[in-house]
Amino acid sequence: MPGLGPAIHVFLYKEGVDGRDKPGHDDGGRVSKLHFEDFQPGAVADYGPRLVTREEIVAFAAEFDPQPMHLDEEAGRATMLGGLSASGWHTCCLMMRMAVDGFAGNSTSMGAPGVDEVKWLKPLRPGTNVTLRTTILDTRVSKSRPDMGFVKMLWETRDEQGAVLAALTASMIFGRRTAMAP
Amino acid sequence: MPGLGPAIHVFLYKEGVDGRDKPGHDDGGRVSKLHFEDFQPGAVADYGPRLVTREEIVAFAAEFDPQPMHLDEEAGRATMLGGLSASGWHTCCLMMRMAVDGFAGNSTSMGAPGVDEVKWLKPLRPGTNVTLRTTILDTRVSKSRPDMGFVKMLWETRDEQGAVLAALTASMIFGRRTAMAP
Repeated sequence: MPGLGPAIHVFLYKEGVDGRDKPGHDDGGRVSKLHFEDFQPGAVADYGPRLVTREEIVAFAAEFDPQPMHLDEEAGRATMLGGLSASGWHTCCLMMRMAVDGFAGNSTSMGAPGVDEVKWLKPLRPGTNVTLRTTILDTRVSKSRPDMGFVKMLWETRDEQGAVLAALTASMIFGRRTAMAP
Repeated sequence: MPGLGPAIHVFLYKEGVDGRDKPGHDDGGRVSKLHFEDFQPGAVADYGPRLVTREEIVAFAAEFDPQPMHLDEEAGRATMLGGLSASGWHTCCLMMRMAVDGFAGNSTSMGAPGVDEVKWLKPLRPGTNVTLRTTILDTRVSKSRPDMGFVKMLWETRDEQGAVLAALTASMIFGRRTAMAP
Protein backbone atom coordinates (compact mmCIF):
# COMPACT_ATOMS: atom_id res chain seq x y z
CA MET A 1 0.00 0.00 0.00
CA PRO A 2 1.61 3.30 -1.05
CA GLY A 3 2.04 5.90 1.66
CA LEU A 4 0.60 9.20 0.49
CA GLY A 5 1.35 11.39 3.46
CA PRO A 6 0.94 11.31 7.20
CA ALA A 7 -2.25 9.56 8.39
CA ILE A 8 -3.50 9.37 4.80
CA HIS A 9 -3.56 6.27 2.67
CA VAL A 10 -5.38 5.80 -0.60
CA PHE A 11 -5.71 2.57 -2.49
CA LEU A 12 -8.02 0.79 -4.85
CA TYR A 13 -8.94 -2.80 -4.11
CA LYS A 14 -9.97 -5.02 -7.00
CA GLU A 15 -11.28 -8.37 -5.88
CA GLY A 16 -8.87 -11.15 -6.74
CA VAL A 17 -6.40 -8.86 -8.45
CA ASP A 18 -4.49 -6.68 -6.04
CA GLY A 19 -6.12 -7.83 -2.82
CA ARG A 20 -2.66 -8.74 -1.54
CA ASP A 21 -1.97 -5.09 -0.94
CA LYS A 22 -5.03 -4.27 1.08
CA PRO A 23 -4.85 -4.14 4.87
CA GLY A 24 -6.20 -7.21 6.56
CA HIS A 25 -4.95 -9.50 3.78
CA ASP A 26 -4.31 -13.06 4.85
CA ASP A 27 -0.73 -13.49 3.69
CA GLY A 28 -0.31 -17.25 3.74
CA GLY A 29 -1.49 -17.85 7.25
CA ARG A 30 -0.32 -14.58 8.77
CA VAL A 31 -3.74 -13.01 9.18
CA SER A 32 -3.48 -9.31 9.86
CA LYS A 33 -7.02 -8.55 10.96
CA LEU A 34 -7.82 -4.88 11.25
CA HIS A 35 -8.32 -3.71 14.82
CA PHE A 36 -9.48 -0.46 16.38
CA GLU A 37 -5.90 0.82 16.44
CA ASP A 38 -5.59 0.50 12.65
CA PHE A 39 -8.05 3.33 12.08
CA GLN A 40 -6.43 6.75 12.36
CA PRO A 41 -8.38 10.01 12.17
CA GLY A 42 -7.81 11.64 8.79
CA ALA A 43 -7.09 8.39 6.96
CA VAL A 44 -8.80 8.07 3.57
CA ALA A 45 -9.27 4.86 1.59
CA ASP A 46 -11.08 3.91 -1.61
CA TYR A 47 -12.73 0.55 -2.28
CA GLY A 48 -14.31 -0.96 -5.35
CA PRO A 49 -15.00 -0.26 -8.16
CA ARG A 50 -18.33 -1.96 -8.67
CA LEU A 51 -20.36 -1.70 -11.85
CA VAL A 52 -24.04 -1.05 -11.15
CA THR A 53 -26.21 -2.50 -13.90
CA ARG A 54 -29.74 -1.62 -14.97
CA GLU A 55 -30.84 -5.17 -14.19
CA GLU A 56 -29.52 -4.89 -10.66
CA ILE A 57 -31.17 -1.51 -10.06
CA VAL A 58 -34.55 -2.78 -11.23
CA ALA A 59 -34.27 -6.09 -9.35
CA PHE A 60 -33.43 -4.35 -6.09
CA ALA A 61 -36.27 -1.86 -6.52
CA ALA A 62 -38.77 -4.60 -7.37
CA GLU A 63 -37.94 -6.27 -4.08
CA PHE A 64 -37.50 -3.37 -1.68
CA ASP A 65 -38.45 -0.01 -3.19
CA PRO A 66 -40.89 -0.48 -6.09
CA GLN A 67 -41.38 3.18 -6.94
CA PRO A 68 -41.58 4.08 -10.66
CA MET A 69 -38.33 6.09 -10.80
CA HIS A 70 -36.39 3.00 -9.71
CA LEU A 71 -38.15 0.62 -12.10
CA ASP A 72 -38.64 2.38 -15.40
CA GLU A 73 -36.63 4.82 -17.51
CA GLU A 74 -39.60 6.83 -18.73
CA ALA A 75 -41.15 7.06 -15.27
CA GLY A 76 -37.78 8.21 -13.96
CA ARG A 77 -37.58 10.99 -16.53
CA ALA A 78 -40.89 12.35 -15.28
CA THR A 79 -39.47 12.84 -11.76
CA MET A 80 -36.90 15.12 -10.15
CA LEU A 81 -34.35 12.33 -10.66
CA GLY A 82 -34.53 12.84 -14.43
CA GLY A 83 -34.18 9.16 -15.34
CA LEU A 84 -33.97 5.63 -14.01
CA SER A 85 -31.98 5.76 -10.76
CA ALA A 86 -31.12 3.29 -8.05
CA SER A 87 -33.05 3.33 -4.80
CA GLY A 88 -31.16 5.27 -2.16
CA TRP A 89 -31.27 2.13 -0.03
CA HIS A 90 -29.63 0.20 -2.86
CA THR A 91 -26.78 2.71 -2.83
CA CYS A 92 -26.39 2.18 0.93
CA CYS A 93 -26.34 -1.59 0.47
CA LEU A 94 -23.67 -1.30 -2.22
CA MET A 95 -21.54 0.79 0.14
CA MET A 96 -21.93 -1.89 2.80
CA ARG A 97 -20.85 -4.63 0.41
CA MET A 98 -17.78 -2.68 -0.70
CA ALA A 99 -16.95 -2.03 2.96
CA VAL A 100 -17.22 -5.73 3.88
CA ASP A 101 -15.12 -6.79 0.88
CA GLY A 102 -12.68 -3.94 1.42
CA PHE A 103 -11.98 -3.94 5.13
CA ALA A 104 -14.80 -4.93 7.50
CA GLY A 105 -14.82 -8.57 6.40
CA ASN A 106 -11.28 -9.05 7.64
CA SER A 107 -11.47 -7.05 10.81
CA THR A 108 -12.64 -7.27 14.40
CA SER A 109 -15.80 -5.36 13.43
CA MET A 110 -18.75 -5.92 15.73
CA GLY A 111 -21.14 -3.92 13.59
CA ALA A 112 -22.61 -0.51 14.24
CA PRO A 113 -25.41 0.77 16.49
CA GLY A 114 -26.77 2.87 13.65
CA VAL A 115 -26.06 5.61 11.16
CA ASP A 116 -25.86 9.29 12.02
CA GLU A 117 -27.00 10.65 8.67
CA VAL A 118 -27.53 9.53 5.09
CA LYS A 119 -27.55 12.00 2.19
CA TRP A 120 -28.66 11.00 -1.30
CA LEU A 121 -27.01 13.76 -3.31
CA LYS A 122 -27.11 12.72 -6.98
CA PRO A 123 -28.93 9.95 -8.88
CA LEU A 124 -27.06 6.66 -9.31
CA ARG A 125 -27.61 5.71 -12.97
CA PRO A 126 -27.28 2.32 -14.66
CA GLY A 127 -23.78 1.64 -15.98
CA THR A 128 -21.98 3.65 -13.32
CA ASN A 129 -18.81 2.28 -11.76
CA VAL A 130 -19.06 3.26 -8.13
CA THR A 131 -16.36 3.31 -5.51
CA LEU A 132 -16.58 3.68 -1.75
CA ARG A 133 -14.40 6.33 -0.13
CA THR A 134 -14.00 6.06 3.63
CA THR A 135 -12.62 8.88 5.78
CA ILE A 136 -11.91 8.27 9.45
CA LEU A 137 -13.43 11.17 11.38
CA ASP A 138 -12.82 10.19 14.99
CA THR A 139 -11.95 7.22 17.20
CA ARG A 140 -12.59 6.58 20.88
CA VAL A 141 -12.23 3.65 23.24
CA SER A 142 -15.47 2.42 24.82
CA LYS A 143 -15.76 3.46 28.47
CA SER A 144 -17.91 0.49 29.47
CA ARG A 145 -16.04 -2.05 27.31
CA PRO A 146 -12.33 -1.13 27.14
CA ASP A 147 -11.70 -4.11 24.86
CA MET A 148 -13.47 -2.29 22.03
CA GLY A 149 -13.65 1.12 20.46
CA PHE A 150 -15.79 3.26 18.19
CA VAL A 151 -14.53 4.41 14.79
CA LYS A 152 -16.59 7.24 13.34
CA MET A 153 -16.40 7.19 9.55
CA LEU A 154 -17.63 9.13 6.56
CA TRP A 155 -18.64 6.84 3.71
CA GLU A 156 -19.06 8.31 0.23
CA THR A 157 -20.33 6.67 -2.95
CA ARG A 158 -18.38 8.20 -5.84
CA ASP A 159 -18.73 7.82 -9.58
CA GLU A 160 -15.90 7.55 -12.15
CA GLN A 161 -15.50 11.36 -12.16
CA GLY A 162 -15.24 11.52 -8.39
CA ALA A 163 -18.68 13.08 -7.93
CA VAL A 164 -20.19 12.12 -4.59
CA LEU A 165 -23.58 10.45 -5.17
CA ALA A 166 -24.34 9.56 -1.56
CA ALA A 167 -22.75 10.04 1.84
CA LEU A 168 -23.29 8.75 5.33
CA THR A 169 -21.59 8.92 8.69
CA ALA A 170 -21.61 6.01 11.12
CA SER A 171 -19.67 4.71 14.11
CA MET A 172 -18.47 1.15 13.74
CA ILE A 173 -17.32 -0.91 16.72
CA PHE A 174 -13.99 -2.75 16.48
CA GLY A 175 -12.06 -4.91 18.91
CA ARG A 176 -8.83 -3.46 20.29
CA ARG A 177 -5.52 -5.11 19.55
CA THR A 178 -3.92 -3.94 22.77
CA ALA A 179 -6.74 -5.35 24.88
CA MET A 180 -6.36 -8.73 23.24
CA ALA A 181 -2.58 -8.91 23.53
CA PRO A 182 -1.70 -6.76 26.54
CA MET B 1 -60.20 2.59 9.09
CA PRO B 2 -61.11 3.00 12.77
CA GLY B 3 -60.63 6.46 14.23
CA LEU B 4 -58.65 6.23 17.44
CA GLY B 5 -58.62 9.85 18.51
CA PRO B 6 -57.84 13.23 17.06
CA ALA B 7 -54.96 13.24 14.59
CA ILE B 8 -54.24 9.59 15.34
CA HIS B 9 -55.14 6.69 13.12
CA VAL B 10 -53.87 3.15 13.45
CA PHE B 11 -54.50 0.38 10.99
CA LEU B 12 -52.95 -2.80 9.76
CA TYR B 13 -52.66 -3.36 6.03
CA LYS B 14 -52.54 -6.92 4.75
CA GLU B 15 -51.78 -7.10 1.05
CA GLY B 16 -54.82 -8.20 -0.90
CA VAL B 17 -56.94 -8.65 2.20
CA ASP B 18 -57.99 -5.40 3.79
CA GLY B 19 -56.20 -3.03 1.46
CA ARG B 20 -59.55 -1.45 0.68
CA ASP B 21 -59.42 0.35 3.98
CA LYS B 22 -56.02 1.95 3.61
CA PRO B 23 -55.71 5.56 2.53
CA GLY B 24 -54.77 5.96 -1.09
CA HIS B 25 -56.75 2.90 -2.12
CA ASP B 26 -58.00 2.96 -5.70
CA ASP B 27 -61.70 2.40 -5.11
CA GLY B 28 -62.92 1.39 -8.55
CA GLY B 29 -61.50 4.33 -10.44
CA ARG B 30 -61.73 6.89 -7.66
CA VAL B 31 -58.04 7.15 -6.98
CA SER B 32 -57.37 8.96 -3.72
CA LYS B 33 -53.64 9.52 -3.95
CA LEU B 34 -52.06 10.74 -0.76
CA HIS B 35 -50.82 14.32 -0.94
CA PHE B 36 -48.80 16.51 1.38
CA GLU B 37 -51.99 17.68 3.10
CA ASP B 38 -52.90 14.14 4.11
CA PHE B 39 -50.01 13.94 6.57
CA GLN B 40 -50.84 15.57 9.89
CA PRO B 41 -48.31 15.97 12.71
CA GLY B 42 -49.01 13.42 15.42
CA ALA B 43 -50.67 10.89 13.12
CA VAL B 44 -49.57 7.30 13.70
CA ALA B 45 -50.06 4.38 11.31
CA ASP B 46 -48.98 0.74 11.22
CA TYR B 47 -48.16 -1.22 8.06
CA GLY B 48 -47.39 -4.87 7.45
CA PRO B 49 -47.01 -7.41 8.95
CA ARG B 50 -44.22 -9.08 7.05
CA LEU B 51 -42.68 -12.39 8.06
CA VAL B 52 -38.88 -12.28 7.87
CA THR B 53 -37.48 -15.74 7.13
CA ARG B 54 -34.04 -17.19 7.78
CA GLU B 55 -33.59 -17.79 4.04
CA GLU B 56 -34.30 -14.13 3.32
CA ILE B 57 -31.93 -12.90 6.03
CA VAL B 58 -29.09 -15.07 4.74
CA ALA B 59 -29.76 -14.26 1.06
CA PHE B 60 -29.73 -10.52 1.72
CA ALA B 61 -26.55 -10.77 3.76
CA ALA B 62 -24.82 -12.89 1.13
CA GLU B 63 -25.46 -10.17 -1.41
CA PHE B 64 -24.95 -6.97 0.56
CA ASP B 65 -23.56 -7.57 4.05
CA PRO B 66 -21.72 -10.90 4.23
CA GLN B 67 -20.64 -10.69 7.85
CA PRO B 68 -20.78 -13.91 9.90
CA MET B 69 -23.54 -12.77 12.29
CA HIS B 70 -25.89 -12.27 9.33
CA LEU B 71 -25.03 -15.60 7.66
CA ASP B 72 -24.68 -18.24 10.33
CA GLU B 73 -26.43 -19.04 13.62
CA GLU B 74 -23.32 -20.19 15.46
CA ALA B 75 -21.27 -17.23 14.28
CA GLY B 76 -24.08 -14.94 15.40
CA ARG B 77 -24.10 -16.46 18.88
CA ALA B 78 -20.42 -15.58 19.24
CA THR B 79 -21.18 -11.87 18.72
CA MET B 80 -22.96 -9.16 20.69
CA LEU B 81 -26.08 -9.94 18.63
CA GLY B 82 -26.35 -13.33 20.35
CA GLY B 83 -27.58 -15.21 17.27
CA LEU B 84 -28.32 -15.00 13.58
CA SER B 85 -29.74 -11.53 12.91
CA ALA B 86 -30.69 -9.56 9.83
CA SER B 87 -28.31 -6.93 8.49
CA GLY B 88 -29.36 -3.50 9.68
CA TRP B 89 -29.59 -2.49 6.03
CA HIS B 90 -31.99 -5.36 5.44
CA THR B 91 -34.22 -3.98 8.18
CA CYS B 92 -34.15 -0.56 6.49
CA CYS B 93 -35.05 -2.11 3.14
CA LEU B 94 -37.97 -3.99 4.71
CA MET B 95 -39.25 -0.72 6.18
CA MET B 96 -39.04 0.87 2.74
CA ARG B 97 -41.00 -1.96 1.16
CA MET B 98 -43.74 -1.77 3.79
CA ALA B 99 -43.86 2.01 3.29
CA VAL B 100 -44.23 1.69 -0.49
CA ASP B 101 -46.93 -0.99 -0.17
CA GLY B 102 -48.62 0.86 2.65
CA PHE B 103 -48.74 4.48 1.51
CA ALA B 104 -45.86 5.80 -0.60
CA GLY B 105 -46.77 3.69 -3.63
CA ASN B 106 -50.12 5.40 -3.96
CA SER B 107 -49.05 8.93 -3.18
CA THR B 108 -47.43 11.96 -4.76
CA SER B 109 -44.12 10.97 -3.13
CA MET B 110 -41.04 12.36 -4.85
CA GLY B 111 -38.64 10.47 -2.65
CA ALA B 112 -36.39 11.79 0.09
CA PRO B 113 -33.10 13.69 0.12
CA GLY B 114 -31.76 11.40 2.81
CA VAL B 115 -32.25 10.06 6.30
CA ASP B 116 -31.57 12.01 9.48
CA GLU B 117 -30.68 9.08 11.69
CA VAL B 118 -30.90 5.29 11.77
CA LYS B 119 -30.80 3.32 15.04
CA TRP B 120 -30.47 -0.44 15.11
CA LEU B 121 -31.80 -1.16 18.59
CA LYS B 122 -32.44 -4.91 18.84
CA PRO B 123 -31.54 -7.88 16.63
CA LEU B 124 -34.09 -8.88 13.98
CA ARG B 125 -34.30 -12.69 14.26
CA PRO B 126 -35.57 -15.21 11.70
CA GLY B 127 -39.28 -15.92 12.02
CA THR B 128 -40.22 -12.46 13.27
CA ASN B 129 -43.34 -10.78 11.94
CA VAL B 130 -42.34 -7.15 11.60
CA THR B 131 -44.57 -4.13 11.19
CA LEU B 132 -43.71 -0.57 10.24
CA ARG B 133 -45.05 2.17 12.49
CA THR B 134 -44.93 5.68 11.06
CA THR B 135 -45.38 8.81 13.15
CA ILE B 136 -45.65 12.20 11.47
CA LEU B 137 -43.29 14.55 13.29
CA ASP B 138 -43.55 17.73 11.27
CA THR B 139 -44.68 19.09 7.89
CA ARG B 140 -43.65 22.19 5.97
CA VAL B 141 -44.26 23.57 2.51
CA SER B 142 -41.15 24.00 0.37
CA LYS B 143 -40.10 27.64 0.07
CA SER B 144 -38.52 27.24 -3.35
CA ARG B 145 -41.18 24.86 -4.72
CA PRO B 146 -44.60 25.75 -3.24
CA ASP B 147 -46.16 22.86 -5.16
CA MET B 148 -44.48 20.41 -2.80
CA GLY B 149 -43.81 19.93 0.89
CA PHE B 150 -41.65 18.00 3.31
CA VAL B 151 -43.12 15.46 5.71
CA LYS B 152 -40.77 14.53 8.52
CA MET B 153 -41.51 11.03 9.76
CA LEU B 154 -40.36 8.58 12.37
CA TRP B 155 -40.27 5.02 11.05
CA GLU B 156 -40.07 2.15 13.52
CA THR B 157 -39.65 -1.57 12.88
CA ARG B 158 -41.66 -3.40 15.56
CA ASP B 159 -41.95 -7.07 16.40
CA GLU B 160 -45.10 -8.96 17.44
CA GLN B 161 -44.72 -7.75 21.02
CA GLY B 162 -44.37 -4.13 19.94
CA ALA B 163 -40.66 -3.93 20.73
CA VAL B 164 -38.89 -1.43 18.49
CA LEU B 165 -36.05 -3.18 16.64
CA ALA B 166 -34.96 -0.24 14.48
CA ALA B 167 -35.91 3.40 14.04
CA LEU B 168 -35.14 6.16 11.60
CA THR B 169 -36.25 9.69 10.89
CA ALA B 170 -36.48 11.06 7.37
CA SER B 171 -38.18 13.85 5.46
CA MET B 172 -40.14 12.67 2.44
CA ILE B 173 -41.25 15.06 -0.31
CA PHE B 174 -44.89 14.99 -1.44
CA GLY B 175 -46.83 16.99 -3.99
CA ARG B 176 -49.47 19.38 -2.61
CA ARG B 177 -53.13 18.88 -3.40
CA THR B 178 -53.93 22.56 -3.14
CA ALA B 179 -51.21 23.53 -5.59
CA MET B 180 -52.56 21.06 -8.13
CA ALA B 181 -56.24 22.04 -7.76
CA PRO B 182 -56.23 25.65 -6.60
